Amino acid sequence: MTMKRKKVSVIGSGFTGATTAFLLAQKELCDVVLVDIPQMENPTKGKALDMLEAGPVLGFDANITGTSNYEDTKDSDIVIITAGIARKPGMSRDDLVQTNQKVMKAVTNDIVKHSPQTTIIVLTNPVDAMTYTVYKESGFPKERVIGQSGVLDTARFRTFVAQELNLSVKDVTGFVLGGHGDDMVPLVRYSTAGGVPLTSLIEPARLEEIVERTRKGGAEIVNLLGNGSAYYAPAASLVEMTEAILKDQKRVLPTIAYLEGEYDLHGIYLGVPTVVGAGGIEKIIELDLLDDEKAGLAKSVESVKTVMKVLE
Amino acid sequence: MTMKRKKVSVIGSGFTGATTAFLLAQKELCDVVLVDIPQMENPTKGKALDMLEAGPVLGFDANITGTSNYEDTKDSDIVIITAGIARKPGMSRDDLVQTNQKVMKAVTNDIVKHSPQTTIIVLTNPVDAMTYTVYKESGFPKERVIGQSGVLDTARFRTFVAQELNLSVKDVTGFVLGGHGDDMVPLVRYSTAGGVPLTSLIEPARLEEIVERTRKGGAEIVNLLGNGSAYYAPAASLVEMTEAILKDQKRVLPTIAYLEGEYDLHGIYLGVPTVVGAGGIEKIIELDLLDDEKAGLAKSVESVKTVMKVLE
Amino acid sequence: MTMKRKKVSVIGSGFTGATTAFLLAQKELCDVVLVDIPQMENPTKGKALDMLEAGPVLGFDANITGTSNYEDTKDSDIVIITAGIARKPGMSRDDLVQTNQKVMKAVTNDIVKHSPQTTIIVLTNPVDAMTYTVYKESGFPKERVIGQSGVLDTARFRTFVAQELNLSVKDVTGFVLGGHGDDMVPLVRYSTAGGVPLTSLIEPARLEEIVERTRKGGAEIVNLLGNGSAYYAPAASLVEMTEAILKDQKRVLPTIAYLEGEYDLHGIYLGVPTVVGAGGIEKIIELDLLDDEKAGLAKSVESVKTVMKVLE
Amino acid sequence: MTMKRKKVSVIGSGFTGATTAFLLAQKELCDVVLVDIPQMENPTKGKALDMLEAGPVLGFDANITGTSNYEDTKDSDIVIITAGIARKPGMSRDDLVQTNQKVMKAVTNDIVKHSPQTTIIVLTNPVDAMTYTVYKESGFPKERVIGQSGVLDTARFRTFVAQELNLSVKDVTGFVLGGHGDDMVPLVRYSTAGGVPLTSLIEPARLEEIVERTRKGGAEIVNLLGNGSAYYAPAASLVEMTEAILKDQKRVLPTIAYLEGEYDLHGIYLGVPTVVGAGGIEKIIELDLLDDEKAGLAKSVESVKTVMKVLE
Repeated sequence: MTMKRKKVSVIGSGFTGATTAFLLAQKELCDVVLVDIPQMENPTKGKALDMLEAGPVLGFDANITGTSNYEDTKDSDIVIITAGIARKPGMSRDDLVQTNQKVMKAVTNDIVKHSPQTTIIVLTNPVDAMTYTVYKESGFPKERVIGQSGVLDTARFRTFVAQELNLSVKDVTGFVLGGHGDDMVPLVRYSTAGGVPLTSLIEPARLEEIVERTRKGGAEIVNLLGNGSAYYAPAASLVEMTEAILKDQKRVLPTIAYLEGEYDLHGIYLGVPTVVGAGGIEKIIELDLLDDEKAGLAKSVESVKTVMKVLE
Repeated sequence: MTMKRKKVSVIGSGFTGATTAFLLAQKELCDVVLVDIPQMENPTKGKALDMLEAGPVLGFDANITGTSNYEDTKDSDIVIITAGIARKPGMSRDDLVQTNQKVMKAVTNDIVKHSPQTTIIVLTNPVDAMTYTVYKESGFPKERVIGQSGVLDTARFRTFVAQELNLSVKDVTGFVLGGHGDDMVPLVRYSTAGGVPLTSLIEPARLEEIVERTRKGGAEIVNLLGNGSAYYAPAASLVEMTEAILKDQKRVLPTIAYLEGEYDLHGIYLGVPTVVGAGGIEKIIELDLLDDEKAGLAKSVESVKTVMKVLE
Repeated sequence: MTMKRKKVSVIGSGFTGATTAFLLAQKELCDVVLVDIPQMENPTKGKALDMLEAGPVLGFDANITGTSNYEDTKDSDIVIITAGIARKPGMSRDDLVQTNQKVMKAVTNDIVKHSPQTTIIVLTNPVDAMTYTVYKESGFPKERVIGQSGVLDTARFRTFVAQELNLSVKDVTGFVLGGHGDDMVPLVRYSTAGGVPLTSLIEPARLEEIVERTRKGGAEIVNLLGNGSAYYAPAASLVEMTEAILKDQKRVLPTIAYLEGEYDLHGIYLGVPTVVGAGGIEKIIELDLLDDEKAGLAKSVESVKTVMKVLE
Repeated sequence: MTMKRKKVSVIGSGFTGATTAFLLAQKELCDVVLVDIPQMENPTKGKALDMLEAGPVLGFDANITGTSNYEDTKDSDIVIITAGIARKPGMSRDDLVQTNQKVMKAVTNDIVKHSPQTTIIVLTNPVDAMTYTVYKESGFPKERVIGQSGVLDTARFRTFVAQELNLSVKDVTGFVLGGHGDDMVPLVRYSTAGGVPLTSLIEPARLEEIVERTRKGGAEIVNLLGNGSAYYAPAASLVEMTEAILKDQKRVLPTIAYLEGEYDLHGIYLGVPTVVGAGGIEKIIELDLLDDEKAGLAKSVESVKTVMKVLE
């Protein structure tokens, strides 16, 4: 009947990792360990301390530790991986994949060593392939290695729709399948505003524009920032998945899950609707797809497989 | 550029009224005035004081006043009417209607006198007819007199579906049209779990049972309690509508709105999907209905009209 | 690394028990089991269901179960006892003590049988003696049997001070020792508004009036209600203590703790400042008292001992 | 009876400004306009959009606008100034003062032009002098120009004490007077843990270390980060002050207020305990000080005056 606080470790203390840590503490969901490489230890400690000092004002009790020592992550309930590099001008996609693959392998070994029973959530791009890498490297059961992309894609879609219709984001739902970004397969017919199908509220051409903007949502932020990429909405998405697991909420969330026959796919991590609870991915929900949706999904699968080949 | 707190008055200090007041204060949305008849003044003051004393513990700053004097409601931003009697054994429906009609008229006059610019939300049953009564008596524009039933009906439906599928209530949506209770017209085809249509998750026969349980949801609670009726979920529903107005959220909520041509209906208050914001009911959303839905709605209309005849 | 939800059982489904259950669910702290005697099973189920139906609207995922079967409380992390009778006109205090003593014994046996590792929080009056009864009957270590009174007394004091000075309740602190109500020993010199001692903000005579009003705070509500006693602020107080344990917050709260030498007292449950965390009462804080404070405490002790004699 | 959302503009889209904007939106307190210079317009728009896209996930409805056009700040209820440069290696303090003075003047003119009735909160360092500059430049009444330092200093002190005693930050209070950082005058005798004076919980030498660490709290973060300064706790502090005004909470907060006779000081902005509500600084609380506290305050005053001379 122990009542000790939950513990979540966030690997990578960049903007996304730090914002994720802050949101977790702010919601008083758990203690947080923010981890980065030894060269970044002091800045990581600095961010952790700064967050901690916000506690009395925002009213949260949560330990936040900055470290480069994986022993501090011991017995984490959940580990979130935000580490890795972003693609830089002139870098080939294969270079990106191989670099981040190495990061994933190293990080995973350190995680597993200290938290063999944990659940891992992966954000690093290309996320389908990186989640697969972590899965293989960890030796964990598939339900305890989860990738993030659909919660973020959906959030962007919902934001754009809410703006278009001048409605509360609380009442707009969205639904995506498949890969992140360009390979995203939106199921617009399952997206609503207050239960009213979007197709009866927005003209098809305009709706297609919104879908396209969602597909390019990450690039839109990158272009505006000029230097760096989005981190507020990605962090919020990671926190929603984490909370669903910590509180066993049985949320229906689009996550990157390992498929073994679902949607007639085998041995691949791909974005699908899932039930997320204490057991990680507790269920994969299968939908009957229309022909164009099937085609979109097939295209997504091809993209992921192309990247996965680089892994070998 | 005044920053004074919002003010909401709740008429009727019974369980629903009191719980509504408590939730409003707890969310720090506004100051609250809880009003009842002179004979109930002391208990009303007692409840208000008890709630106020929870403030330091729950961390809210909100004045909560118990009173029988409508002058205390002066310049309310919103007034919520929960006053009126419940139907008792042996009481004819017409008696109920006529008694509550008198209550609505008296209460409305007192409200309008002190808050001529307010928005009124009505809970008292039979709610379609009572909202109509308040509308007529107040002389207010239609968008500032709103009835509650669909938020509650939907909440019950979502609860039952979430239990059936063992999923988070956060991800289950529901959608109802028409009257409260027996006359409720559920649009199951627009109800989803995480965007997945319920029709692909629950067998039709079982789904119909859930719909039927929702229709009888009020009676189920009445029968269990033995003495009295539901108040937690009704209060929560009133608070959601109030928050939508106070924060100008543009929520898409099923409310009882005055129809002047929408759905080919005229001069009647009926449950329809609406956009709720600072302006009260800012928009009525019209949907294309299937034939059986149209039939259900027509039945609802007949029921409301039958009750409205008693008003004259 | 199990992530199952916390579970809290609330014994007694009256206003305080029900409000406590609702607040726990609303804060998404745990699943809740609301327990009452078999004759009250249906109303208890009705309240639980009504609360549950508020979940989709207020946005919480928590199971709430109404029952008269203690098997449903199995493996509770915390059990809160609100059961027992209130003193009625014509009833002697000894009758009250003996009746509630029987209730405590019966209830404790049922609790311990199904949750031998739980922590128990007692609200039933006279609370010092009833907490002692539960302690003895349970055979639990003292740190896992805790009485509530100081959080509530302090909340009332803070409310009155905030009103007096027109300040936020968030910034007013209070501090009490000893018994509940008349025997309360306020340590005004340790009470502040934003860190400023109250003694420099409020005239002594007026401050004494506020202290006296706090002492009679329960009776003030009883007199206003006419029928029944306070439940909003008591429930909030129970929830604060419960949250401190569930989240291991190490809160400094005035609770009724078992003294074994602290304050030179032995074998008695009395209100003292404590640290409340996952281990229940993790520490009793001893203060140097002024002479009049010592005298007040001695008077409290006498009152408690007089009641404890009735227990034998 | 208009219910339009509150509007807060944040000048400066650096880490502190952006984090402030995010927290304001997250708490659904207002719509937010994030303003920076034209060269930073795109990154500012990028951050605003990224935050907005977190809305559906975190559940908030708030418009967040990134802009370099002050017309977008029109009719702000509150404007928060985080703009200005930080002191760089080799830069004299006078250079810093003069550079930021110019920024304050320019920014204030733009603010006042579009929001003549707003309340301004200043964070830019050296904050006492910069608040004075904004006050003079704006021509606003003194209660509507407020500087931040004490909320942050107190938060740091509370964090360190809570860590030292392993207690909840919720129960540790602190109290400071005078300038930010080195010139801070801690009133330890008014600082408590759960009402218990810290002086009876922590040895004097250790307590002095904690005070000293608080004084150097900003530098500690700067040194750890290596590049940049704290922003989480400063942003949280700004948000607490903003919320107090927007909700008219009458919080007792240490703020930088304009003194006209209080504490025998005239024509100077200095950190003192104040009541913050809809009217901005509604009251300055005067305390009887001990001799060493008076000496500390005098030293603070000298520091502020030295900086103020540079302004002329």
